[in-house]
Amino acid sequence: MSEIIMKEQIIDAIKNKKLTLLKEIFETVPNIDIAEAMEDIEDVTQIIWVFRVISSEYTAYVFSELSPETQEKIINAFSDKDLIKLLENSFADDVADAIEEMPANVASRVLKVAPADLRKDVNQLLNYKENTAGSVMTTEFILMLDHVTVKDAIEQIRQKGKDAETVYTIFVRDAKRNLVGTVGLDDLIFADEKQRLEDIMDRDFVTCSVNDDQEEVANLFKRYDLTAMAVVNNEQKIIGIITIDDVVDVMEEEANEDIAALSHVTPLEESYLDTPARKMAIKCIPWIIILLILGTFTTMALDRIEKAAVFTTIPVLIAFVPALMDTGGNSGGQTIALMIRGLATKEFTPRDIFKVIRKELLTALIVATSISVFAFVWFTIEQYTGIVTNENLITESGSFATIWNGGCWTAEFTKSALVTSLIVATTLFVAAILSKIVAVLLPLTVAALKKDPAIIAQPLLTTIVDVVSLITYLGIATLFVHLFNIV
Amino acid sequence: MSEIIMKEQIIDAIKNKKLTLLKEIFETVPNIDIAEAMEDIEDVTQIIWVFRVISSEYTAYVFSELSPETQEKIINAFSDKDLIKLLENSFADDVADAIEEMPANVASRVLKVAPADLRKDVNQLLNYKENTAGSVMTTEFILMLDHVTVKDAIEQIRQKGKDAETVYTIFVRDAKRNLVGTVGLDDLIFADEKQRLEDIMDRDFVTCSVNDDQEEVANLFKRYDLTAMAVVNNEQKIIGIITIDDVVDVMEEEANEDIAALSHVTPLEESYLDTPARKMAIKCIPWIIILLILGTFTTMALDRIEKAAVFTTIPVLIAFVPALMDTGGNSGGQTIALMIRGLATKEFTPRDIFKVIRKELLTALIVATSISVFAFVWFTIEQYTGIVTNENLITESGSFATIWNGGCWTAEFTKSALVTSLIVATTLFVAAILSKIVAVLLPLTVAALKKDPAIIAQPLLTTIVDVVSLITYLGIATLFVHLFNIV
Repeated sequence: MSEIIMKEQIIDAIKNKKLTLLKEIFETVPNIDIAEAMEDIEDVTQIIWVFRVISSEYTAYVFSELSPETQEKIINAFSDKDLIKLLENSFADDVADAIEEMPANVASRVLKVAPADLRKDVNQLLNYKENTAGSVMTTEFILMLDHVTVKDAIEQIRQKGKDAETVYTIFVRDAKRNLVGTVGLDDLIFADEKQRLEDIMDRDFVTCSVNDDQEEVANLFKRYDLTAMAVVNNEQKIIGIITIDDVVDVMEEEANEDIAALSHVTPLEESYLDTPARKMAIKCIPWIIILLILGTFTTMALDRIEKAAVFTTIPVLIAFVPALMDTGGNSGGQTIALMIRGLATKEFTPRDIFKVIRKELLTALIVATSISVFAFVWFTIEQYTGIVTNENLITESGSFATIWNGGCWTAEFTKSALVTSLIVATTLFVAAILSKIVAVLLPLTVAALKKDPAIIAQPLLTTIVDVVSLITYLGIATLFVHLFNIV
Repeated sequence: MSEIIMKEQIIDAIKNKKLTLLKEIFETVPNIDIAEAMEDIEDVTQIIWVFRVISSEYTAYVFSELSPETQEKIINAFSDKDLIKLLENSFADDVADAIEEMPANVASRVLKVAPADLRKDVNQLLNYKENTAGSVMTTEFILMLDHVTVKDAIEQIRQKGKDAETVYTIFVRDAKRNLVGTVGLDDLIFADEKQRLEDIMDRDFVTCSVNDDQEEVANLFKRYDLTAMAVVNNEQKIIGIITIDDVVDVMEEEANEDIAALSHVTPLEESYLDTPARKMAIKCIPWIIILLILGTFTTMALDRIEKAAVFTTIPVLIAFVPALMDTGGNSGGQTIALMIRGLATKEFTPRDIFKVIRKELLTALIVATSISVFAFVWFTIEQYTGIVTNENLITESGSFATIWNGGCWTAEFTKSALVTSLIVATTLFVAAILSKIVAVLLPLTVAALKKDPAIIAQPLLTTIVDVVSLITYLGIATLFVHLFNIV
């Protein structure tokens, strides 16, 4: 609630040009909250006024939290002088992110106006492919020679630190410009003034390459509890750093991608509320159509099966088809989700294949046994209580009502009901095991081929499991009906 | 590959007591890598040797990365003196996490031996409920009075900073012990020695309450790009802090929970490879059984429908049931995943209900129209090519082979095939819209009731959509068959 009140206060302060209050707000309210309030102001001249009267030391941060649309509106309304002031207080990675979303003419105006070193940094960042370490990194970091003393290092930080994305990690190089260590700002505080960086630096630092996938980078941050990491080029020279706040966003993005893939929808690029319905539909439709086409195999199989002798003899078997397919799908779905997530977060790699297969086989056996025993009992209850009607018996022995009253629980009915349950439960057993095996092998294979298991493996799983289950169903039903001499 | 070689070098250095190499390893290799190598050493006396010869300043960190089982083995083999040395270099939150996993007798020995202030902190941490801010926080932080000068603050950090979890954020209180601001270590470096903390502190800091859910805390860190946050009690006094490294773990845990719930499996507590098959099965079985029981409604519906006149007249309609149910399920599954994730990451709240419903209705309309048009064409092709066999027509007009050859594409066949496609496509349209609506309302309702939407909403969705789709199918089929005068 208080969030809403605050938002309205901010809007009110801007609209009614309450300068003192506004200055107080910029001092005490986090940037993102101010940015969200600004998004609700239609009149761009009112926003421009804010950027004129409040120091760009504050407004530059707020600007970076605004939506691309609002950023563009503001830049178009800005004079070059306004724009330079804003850019001087912005970080290269924020500017690069903003420019990527803007029309070419707006972007080129920003780059033209930007100070030369910022322009160089931004251009460099814009050249890295999406989702690589390069696209997440920033070029503003502190790099010092290993011979520098602690005293000099602190002095350098005082002078140049404000331009860096972080001063909490200082990167240390040797005379050959090779990265040789990192020093935490706390280490500088704890150390003696006369010590040199090489005496106090951590030599167990971790780096990533500029072309590494951002997901790999996030996994390194998690594994090593990092707050900043050096990005190196092919010659192992540091060219940028990645900080934890950007990694947090990557982690969320990657988790959302895994969830989207598992639910058959292309991940959204903007936030849910900012994505128009038309765009949402485009993210959904292709997947449903692909699955519909893949489902043709299931339709084909069911079409053949329902005409088989055994299914016309015991039509109730058809009623169990959804239960069969759902259970197979659920059993495989559990495993594939664990596999895809495990592969994504590097909990295991295709190298661990035999450990994983052994574990899943054992799990599949326990799961399949338990659920098929349960299913046997449950399906028998369903038939006895008339939840499903074993029709071929009703027409012979009496109406549905008499079954419900126990009137025709004849030996013949009992036998047929038990065999029916046995057929379905046995098929379930096979389907559950099969689907877990496919759910292990499919993602591991896809991962070994360096493709994204989340996108490719999941749709195939359902189709394979459905078709094989139906064929198994037909086989088991035919076998058991002959074996037990039903009809 | 280099990871494996390194691991073997570490094991070799320990087993063969290569002290110089081992010291070098502890200097240059990250703790987690050393811990993983140690896990592979069977003989606990060899591990104990490491803890004796290497300074506990290093080993305490490695210890906190070991598995609960190995930690327990080491503690049991430790003398009290060894244990004290280890504990003196450990953080309260790591000790609390370790103790939680240990048998009572081992835990109480650790607490008995621990220095008094550590014991107090650990006991406090152990009292917070799982998944709350209290359970994630640490009690070792730096709190200073607002009147302290920058010079004195730096001096205090030099003296007491090594005991704190982080010195990068200094928390500032007033004389009444109320939290009034935060100061970054970098601000101290940039500031003039004589300034006071109140002059340079950030007043726009964010706090959480000790009983807040850890997911809420993670959302705050993301929203405000924090690296440390104060945890306050009911009187708004700071009692602990949460740092970004712990939040990263929370984020991963929460993402895994959402994925697990969407795939119908209880989240694992340990890593995948550490979870035995028996435990995995226990996480899987209840869900499958619940879904099997819920599926009974689908079985009931299908059992009634397949005996309806229209389905015996046009048996091919049964073959489309899986396609129908899968498409409805997929369409709703897309929406429910977006809803659950959006609610979890606070992208929107139940307050945004009307915006969300409007967007999803519009999306549903576009999706349903597109896929039902596609389905109409596709299902007609399926019938014309004999992928499915419209049997009632075959028996009248010729065999499957003659259909395939185009021999019996009579007017009658064409009419029946088109009506069949129309029936299925129209049902699909209804099912797709319906399932998206249910997929929006269900999670929002569950969230408004303060329950976890991921766990409750998803299983109900499938059943509701399946049953309603089947009933709709029957209604539409009966209507169209009469309307178009198909036998």
